[in-house]
Amino acid sequence: MLKSLQEIVGERVSSSLAERCCYSSDASQVSGYPDFVVRPANTGEVSRIMMLCNERDVPVVARGAGSGLAGGASPVSGGVVLDMSGMDRILEMDLENLQVIVEPGVVAEKLNWALEPHGFFFPPDPGSSSFCTIGGMISYNSSGMRSVKYGTTRSYVLDLEVVLADGRVIHTGSRNLKSAAGYDLTRLFVGSEGTLGIITRAGLKVAPLPKERRLVFASFESAEAAGQAVIAVFSQGITPSACEILDRTTLKVLRLVDPKLALPDDGDVILFEVDGSRDSTAEAAEQIEKVCRPMAITIRQASGREMEPIWAARRLVGAAISRLDPKKTRIYMGEDVGVPIKQIPALIKRVQQITASVGIPAMKYGHIGDGNLHVALFIDVNDPDQWDRLRTAADRIHRAALSLGGTVSSEHGIGLARAEYMAEQVGKESLNVMRAIKKSLDPRGILNPGKMGL
Amino acid sequence: MLKSLQEIVGERVSSSLAERCCYSSDASQVSGYPDFVVRPANTGEVSRIMMLCNERDVPVVARGAGSGLAGGASPVSGGVVLDMSGMDRILEMDLENLQVIVEPGVVAEKLNWALEPHGFFFPPDPGSSSFCTIGGMISYNSSGMRSVKYGTTRSYVLDLEVVLADGRVIHTGSRNLKSAAGYDLTRLFVGSEGTLGIITRAGLKVAPLPKERRLVFASFESAEAAGQAVIAVFSQGITPSACEILDRTTLKVLRLVDPKLALPDDGDVILFEVDGSRDSTAEAAEQIEKVCRPMAITIRQASGREMEPIWAARRLVGAAISRLDPKKTRIYMGEDVGVPIKQIPALIKRVQQITASVGIPAMKYGHIGDGNLHVALFIDVNDPDQWDRLRTAADRIHRAALSLGGTVSSEHGIGLARAEYMAEQVGKESLNVMRAIKKSLDPRGILNPGKMGL
Repeated sequence: MLKSLQEIVGERVSSSLAERCCYSSDASQVSGYPDFVVRPANTGEVSRIMMLCNERDVPVVARGAGSGLAGGASPVSGGVVLDMSGMDRILEMDLENLQVIVEPGVVAEKLNWALEPHGFFFPPDPGSSSFCTIGGMISYNSSGMRSVKYGTTRSYVLDLEVVLADGRVIHTGSRNLKSAAGYDLTRLFVGSEGTLGIITRAGLKVAPLPKERRLVFASFESAEAAGQAVIAVFSQGITPSACEILDRTTLKVLRLVDPKLALPDDGDVILFEVDGSRDSTAEAAEQIEKVCRPMAITIRQASGREMEPIWAARRLVGAAISRLDPKKTRIYMGEDVGVPIKQIPALIKRVQQITASVGIPAMKYGHIGDGNLHVALFIDVNDPDQWDRLRTAADRIHRAALSLGGTVSSEHGIGLARAEYMAEQVGKESLNVMRAIKKSLDPRGILNPGKMGL
Repeated sequence: MLKSLQEIVGERVSSSLAERCCYSSDASQVSGYPDFVVRPANTGEVSRIMMLCNERDVPVVARGAGSGLAGGASPVSGGVVLDMSGMDRILEMDLENLQVIVEPGVVAEKLNWALEPHGFFFPPDPGSSSFCTIGGMISYNSSGMRSVKYGTTRSYVLDLEVVLADGRVIHTGSRNLKSAAGYDLTRLFVGSEGTLGIITRAGLKVAPLPKERRLVFASFESAEAAGQAVIAVFSQGITPSACEILDRTTLKVLRLVDPKLALPDDGDVILFEVDGSRDSTAEAAEQIEKVCRPMAITIRQASGREMEPIWAARRLVGAAISRLDPKKTRIYMGEDVGVPIKQIPALIKRVQQITASVGIPAMKYGHIGDGNLHVALFIDVNDPDQWDRLRTAADRIHRAALSLGGTVSSEHGIGLARAEYMAEQVGKESLNVMRAIKKSLDPRGILNPGKMGL
């Protein structure tokens, strides 16, 4: 096998233990050693690798930056890891057609650096945008703070070049902004977590940069009350460009990071960002303030430079939690649940009850305008009992979301970490339909086997 | 078979010649007689009908309002037509969750009437919105004038209840605004033209109604120059809520309909609509005027009541063409091509050359901001020679779009009318992937057989 792979990619393959260890996991707790690490340079190589692996029934797992939080890029069945991060060229800035053509290894932030001087941006903004790759974002339908207004990665993919399990190369779309011609293969591959094919190129729609942004931040007696304010704002027909919750534990952490941070002293906080023209942002911010004022403890606005430290702190939050207790580590489990907006207060209450009863400290923050609550559980990783309680808490949080009509993952994906919930999440027959589709495109089951409950 | 169907739906089945004739075609030239017309009242009935038809290899074609323009609802292989227009209840207005739950027979305009008092709307707006059904819109991923800003039907479907070929009932999504859990079955069914399952219920996202709209209309020396202006506006990062072209033939027709219409006397016209707050619309309209002024013959703005007759006339255009010559009829063929925005001027030029060389008069209008050009060809339907030339013109228009990297359909779908172009449109291997997916969900091929080039 090593020799056959070398014939395709030359020295860009390795089976050394050190390399295999480096590629054994993503940013989740899921791991497994690959047999080979391969770094393809182009579509032709990927196609030949797939033909080889399909012929020999060797599992293939694609990997971008390895920043996934569900084990999607972890090679739990061995085989080949395809490190796509080397295919990282922006091939074309076709801005007259409002699109760019990129290879999958392009880092999201780098794409935005290239777009900014032209007045455009690629809206999906995961917390990992300074290192995650476009290929990973497409495979997990990533989003972030702005999806409440701008939608998820799914909304921005116009075309994919995909290598199928047997090495065939297809395009799923075109450069047309609108087309009604055949099944929407593009969106079938978006979010398919590497189980249907290997993405080797993408045509992405871009959006004009907004001229102005403005922030309204309001604090509330409880996280539940904060959730009620979110419902009230949306019911008024206001669409913020971001709508984030930071519970009081999160605020405590942020104050440890930056004691001068201009955030309220008390309560649970919602950040509403609005964007657009100068006048329309001022108007929308005023409306939000009016809706929230009767429910809030404090409320104020920020614009321009004043917003920067607040957003910078918000972005740090996932990592900053260690400031609360240096002996403890945040573990990403049960971290990405979501519910229909109306159920946000109920979800917050249930999560509070669960973490209190299990005795694990938790920070709650996230994209509450999408119904997405990131629960940050942290434990002493040297204490097996805390691991047990962590698993119990994560499981209960997942089940709480499901019982409220919610989802075990809003934006991080299923991978292996959440695979056990798939039948309950989508329904037994829908899961069977997914399995049938998987089988029709990958009959030998070599693409990322074991993932997504397929 | 009739008796078995009666056992399921009682008197709501017919095999009379008159009924079969009424259901033999949609609004296209494609036709074929069904053997039975069935009007199901609920999901359970649809499921039992599918089980029966699957067992006996009887084709099933779903039909909404029959306003399709590609033969999608024409039962060309006989069998059962399922008339879904009786399942027309708005089941739930769940506006706190920014969504509604509807049956597939709900007419688009009626849904918007129900939403308007609450300050919301369902953005996709096909020209047929006063009679087309939500089920049809989902099956063909319909759109219209506003998709340039608001996206197509695809962007608004959160969940579908679908009856599969063998009678199983699945849900494809949920009430969550954001979820990353499994394949995007929702978007696989959107635009699948009744070939993968029967839609019996839909959860739709709705959007807040904009407060203000404003219109900029500019006339140009040629339709090509008008196309250049569109590129220039988009390159400036302006996103209009509509961007329509009306060529000079179209304007002539509109003036016959309403001689007082406030449109330019000369040239080819682009209508740019912007929406949002009062100030932001004024600002965007000003920007558009500034970009277009150096290229335009005349340019002016309209707002409020002044816009109404212009949009009303625009909506009439497809039917109004007979005013130009009462002996001639518009035939919908080659009517829905699209190209990447940059190619709009080239497409317009090619279409002009084709219609001139074939000697068939044509009106060109459409959603040019999406690259979508509706070409209205009209002929004396009693003249076989004109029919021949019409077919030649339509074929050349389709091939012109394809040669420019475009699409044979932007929003009307493939059906049977455009099935012959599918391999060239999506590529041979992509079409094979679509066939494999179709086979995995409908192994006996009973769902809308013969359509989409599958």
